[in-house]
Amino acid sequence: MIGEKIYNLCKELFSINRSITGNGVRDTLKILKRELPDLAIAEVHTGTKFFDWTIPKEWNIQEAYIIDPQGNKICDFSKNNLHVVGYSIPIDKVVNLDELNSHLYSIPEQPNAIPYVTSYYKERWGFCITESERNKLIDGEYKVYINSTLKDGSLTYGEILIKGESEKEIFFSTYICHPSMANNELSGPTLVTYLVKYIKSLNKRRYSYRIIFVPETIGSIMYLSKHLKTMKKKIIAGFNVSCVGDNHSYSFLPSKDGTTLSDKISRHVLKNLISNFNVYSFLEDRGSDERQYCAPGIDLPVCSIMRTKYDEYKEYHTSLDNLDYISSEGLSGAYDVYKEVINTLENNYIYVSTVLGEPQLGKRGLYPTISTKYTHAIVKDMLNLLVYCDGKLDLVDIAEKINVPIWELYDMVNSLLDQGVIKVISK
Amino acid sequence: MIGEKIYNLCKELFSINRSITGNGVRDTLKILKRELPDLAIAEVHTGTKFFDWTIPKEWNIQEAYIIDPQGNKICDFSKNNLHVVGYSIPIDKVVNLDELNSHLYSIPEQPNAIPYVTSYYKERWGFCITESERNKLIDGEYKVYINSTLKDGSLTYGEILIKGESEKEIFFSTYICHPSMANNELSGPTLVTYLVKYIKSLNKRRYSYRIIFVPETIGSIMYLSKHLKTMKKKIIAGFNVSCVGDNHSYSFLPSKDGTTLSDKISRHVLKNLISNFNVYSFLEDRGSDERQYCAPGIDLPVCSIMRTKYDEYKEYHTSLDNLDYISSEGLSGAYDVYKEVINTLENNYIYVSTVLGEPQLGKRGLYPTISTKYTHAIVKDMLNLLVYCDGKLDLVDIAEKINVPIWELYDMVNSLLDQGVIKVISK
Amino acid sequence: MIGEKIYNLCKELFSINRSITGNGVRDTLKILKRELPDLAIAEVHTGTKFFDWTIPKEWNIQEAYIIDPQGNKICDFSKNNLHVVGYSIPIDKVVNLDELNSHLYSIPEQPNAIPYVTSYYKERWGFCITESERNKLIDGEYKVYINSTLKDGSLTYGEILIKGESEKEIFFSTYICHPSMANNELSGPTLVTYLVKYIKSLNKRRYSYRIIFVPETIGSIMYLSKHLKTMKKKIIAGFNVSCVGDNHSYSFLPSKDGTTLSDKISRHVLKNLISNFNVYSFLEDRGSDERQYCAPGIDLPVCSIMRTKYDEYKEYHTSLDNLDYISSEGLSGAYDVYKEVINTLENNYIYVSTVLGEPQLGKRGLYPTISTKYTHAIVKDMLNLLVYCDGKLDLVDIAEKINVPIWELYDMVNSLLDQGVIKVISK
Repeated sequence: MIGEKIYNLCKELFSINRSITGNGVRDTLKILKRELPDLAIAEVHTGTKFFDWTIPKEWNIQEAYIIDPQGNKICDFSKNNLHVVGYSIPIDKVVNLDELNSHLYSIPEQPNAIPYVTSYYKERWGFCITESERNKLIDGEYKVYINSTLKDGSLTYGEILIKGESEKEIFFSTYICHPSMANNELSGPTLVTYLVKYIKSLNKRRYSYRIIFVPETIGSIMYLSKHLKTMKKKIIAGFNVSCVGDNHSYSFLPSKDGTTLSDKISRHVLKNLISNFNVYSFLEDRGSDERQYCAPGIDLPVCSIMRTKYDEYKEYHTSLDNLDYISSEGLSGAYDVYKEVINTLENNYIYVSTVLGEPQLGKRGLYPTISTKYTHAIVKDMLNLLVYCDGKLDLVDIAEKINVPIWELYDMVNSLLDQGVIKVISK
Repeated sequence: MIGEKIYNLCKELFSINRSITGNGVRDTLKILKRELPDLAIAEVHTGTKFFDWTIPKEWNIQEAYIIDPQGNKICDFSKNNLHVVGYSIPIDKVVNLDELNSHLYSIPEQPNAIPYVTSYYKERWGFCITESERNKLIDGEYKVYINSTLKDGSLTYGEILIKGESEKEIFFSTYICHPSMANNELSGPTLVTYLVKYIKSLNKRRYSYRIIFVPETIGSIMYLSKHLKTMKKKIIAGFNVSCVGDNHSYSFLPSKDGTTLSDKISRHVLKNLISNFNVYSFLEDRGSDERQYCAPGIDLPVCSIMRTKYDEYKEYHTSLDNLDYISSEGLSGAYDVYKEVINTLENNYIYVSTVLGEPQLGKRGLYPTISTKYTHAIVKDMLNLLVYCDGKLDLVDIAEKINVPIWELYDMVNSLLDQGVIKVISK
Repeated sequence: MIGEKIYNLCKELFSINRSITGNGVRDTLKILKRELPDLAIAEVHTGTKFFDWTIPKEWNIQEAYIIDPQGNKICDFSKNNLHVVGYSIPIDKVVNLDELNSHLYSIPEQPNAIPYVTSYYKERWGFCITESERNKLIDGEYKVYINSTLKDGSLTYGEILIKGESEKEIFFSTYICHPSMANNELSGPTLVTYLVKYIKSLNKRRYSYRIIFVPETIGSIMYLSKHLKTMKKKIIAGFNVSCVGDNHSYSFLPSKDGTTLSDKISRHVLKNLISNFNVYSFLEDRGSDERQYCAPGIDLPVCSIMRTKYDEYKEYHTSLDNLDYISSEGLSGAYDVYKEVINTLENNYIYVSTVLGEPQLGKRGLYPTISTKYTHAIVKDMLNLLVYCDGKLDLVDIAEKINVPIWELYDMVNSLLDQGVIKVISK
């Protein structure tokens, strides 16, 4: 049911022409704000510098197509916005096939896929086309028409801050700059939208949450540049949410550090909730905004839990990454993992035994009153939990140590808290 | 020979009805005091609180049996004290088979074994019986008779402190609360008795030794509660001695920390003295007083070297753990390992080279005067020993590093000390 | 070509009778000084104490042989200087075969090899002979004649100090005390001679270099004793150069510590330059002057890169370790490895990113301006290099981390330095 809702939101957003700037981003954020009234939408102007980068001109596009020598309209932007190279400058002229070809992009190994191509930081124009359509092009004159604008304007993004008992923050980042592709990347912002609803529904919220919807790279760099000091001080765990829509596999991409709280909890939840998942390497396999969040000097504890990772499915960055590639089951599975990650973060306290030696569990109804050769095995998990409530290990550490999913310890922890034999250590 | 002596002591103590309190404990300690005149016997009163626990009433029992419908006396305590559930309240009434069955304990998978069952902290009565005898019980009236007392009294334990040159202590703990069972647990207190004789026989004693004979759990908790500060300050290595009587295997159960001096030395001695031994896990396999000695906040360096570990042999906690299950060979093997552990502790100094570069061993008669291609191999162990006399590694570390049993280094160390090329570092 | 030059130097030096003292050492150093005019030659007098050792008498020898019962001259020192036990006292007498045999050394398993035998610190005389020749000796009278002198004199050694920008030093040690043997040890001093020429040829020299030519053991101990404080302060990496002349294998013997800069760089260069090499153990396999350089309290970062290691080839320490056993190819291979080690040391800076987040490589011409699904792979090594320029890892650490030979990073590093997006951290 939750999967269907997320899927439907993807469907609603699919046809909008997003890029790193422009009205497509604004339209997308407007729909997300309908779902999340707290969403704050902000703009930063063309030319503003953030770290080593400068906000580029704003790009908008109304219409684009090619008229072939027989008068057919091809590469029609109104049919698929991937047909136009992102950030193409306006053009309206007639070219021969040779010149046209130098502006065409296709993928020989995937004859039916329109590739996704952009040129944000160098002005050029171009069209993307399937290899099979390209092979049919004949000699002759082609009218190429792109009605776009590339002008001073701004870059648009959204953020939500949800207060918890602590100032310490959990961070989620996802991106809203991809045109009509589904897994990469409508699954990220739509899933995060529903995670925000979940976080807001919690009765008691231990941590605060910082969630951002930004264009990839330039957006995360802009946001880091504005908030780095706060983020380094407050964020204890973070996640770059991308490629969470298909139903083929689960994937984990660790942070650069690899041993942060985010990494530890992601591994624990995946291991215990999912029978089988791929572990990728930050060094070999990174490619999304963890490149920024884990850059030297930034070093935030940001990792990614994905379904099938970008670069690991052939439909990636083509028109085949469409609404058929993702599914409500796929989205639902990723949602469940992230929800459990949030629960784990919220429940991951450090406990310490309040008594020296083993507590007398028997008088508290937590231990068999009759002792036989089988007694010990019955209470083994509870005794193991107790022996590691040493004020150093957190509950995830203990769960890992005693090889039990953390969620199977919650009732036990509550009994022991009720009985006063353990207590929470404040850090 | 030493094995036979320990075995005979087991035999002498076997029929006494021990529990966590009562006259059986007193009688046992009296016999041990005959062997060890220094043994101090102490009592703590019913109702005294130690950590989370309270000393229970003292239990004593004179007679107990069942008269079956044909007038036969069965489950006769005078024939085997395991027939009565430990801490049974007095009873004298007639019951039908159904009611009797709710008070009977047997082991279906072990039809000829009387199980060992206790109920220290909840008042009940019960009998233990072999499954095959139980199956013969017919409908009818049964007279159940237990002539026991459960009254304010005390818990009895023994301790010995043996002074050495240093205030630092080696700790041995064993328990004296099991009725007529041999490996678990008469092997522990009887073997420790002979280790005490060995320790007292040493000409020179570097360390002090603290040895206690206590009832399991409540006894170690009581003792820890009284002496924790001293124990944490002084004890550098400790051993919980249990299940050291059979001749089937050797076992090692590490401390919670797993890397303490006790652990390091136990592993070194077992590896080099015994060809093959089982290594158990504190997490998965603990079950004796290391539960207390390694509890959070206690954290003493206590591990166990055993023959066949409790829970790992089918006779465990039944009448089959009898004098046939243990042997003088089994006890002797465990004694030899613990003796070598003590020797290793006593000899485990940190040495430092007194010269820079290699000492000129040749002029000291420790190196061949003629040099050929084979020279180096002859003195390899001595050169390896010297190169690691760096003031950081202790002799066990060096023995491990150069892969030689520590006892094969003693003569070499003495030569080098005599020649003045190494000296002891005081810590 | 370089290999041939080194080989020819070996050839020139081969017949000289070297020992730990005497004119053979002086003659050898005189020839090396012809190649390296900066070579400083020094002497220390008999009787001088260094650490635990005393400089022995100086040994020189003019003539030595045996006349057999048939009047044949055998074991003629003028034919092979290995025939005489090193440091033999003068002798001129007639002995029978029994007495002769007690002064003869041969190797039964190697019937055609004259063994290399010495007796530096105990006065004796002796001859070395092949087993097959020995077997032919008949009963009768033998004239034994050794015209040698053992007198107060001195021990001779050479050293060169080459200044670099930093006072920090790279250390090379090799030995010059072996008579006519080629791999062990003319390959060491001759190869080091050519490494010195290479070091002096460098346009820019970051580090200073300390190179010594000493007799084994007594020489390194003498040198350490004179310079230990300076060496411990200045030396950041060191190499004991021995057995670098044959063409059968490459070998690595780590320092005692095993993780020093020398070790790290040696492993990196060997792994990336040589497909296959043997890694030996300091504990099990050391046997040359690393025994002194890594002794407790000395603890210098000295390891060895060798071709076939001493003790690992049957010709070792016999007359079969001759000019046929080594080759210009063998010497050339070792030279190339050491040269790359020097280059790596000189280039092994710590870099730190000057910008937060990823630098915008596109605007600097270092990143494709058009972005497709294949873009990331093209610049992967550069992005990996950048993400680890964190001010902590040095360039070898990064090369290891991203699994690229360090020399493939030099151009990339220079581009990034030119663009100002990374800078060197001074330590």
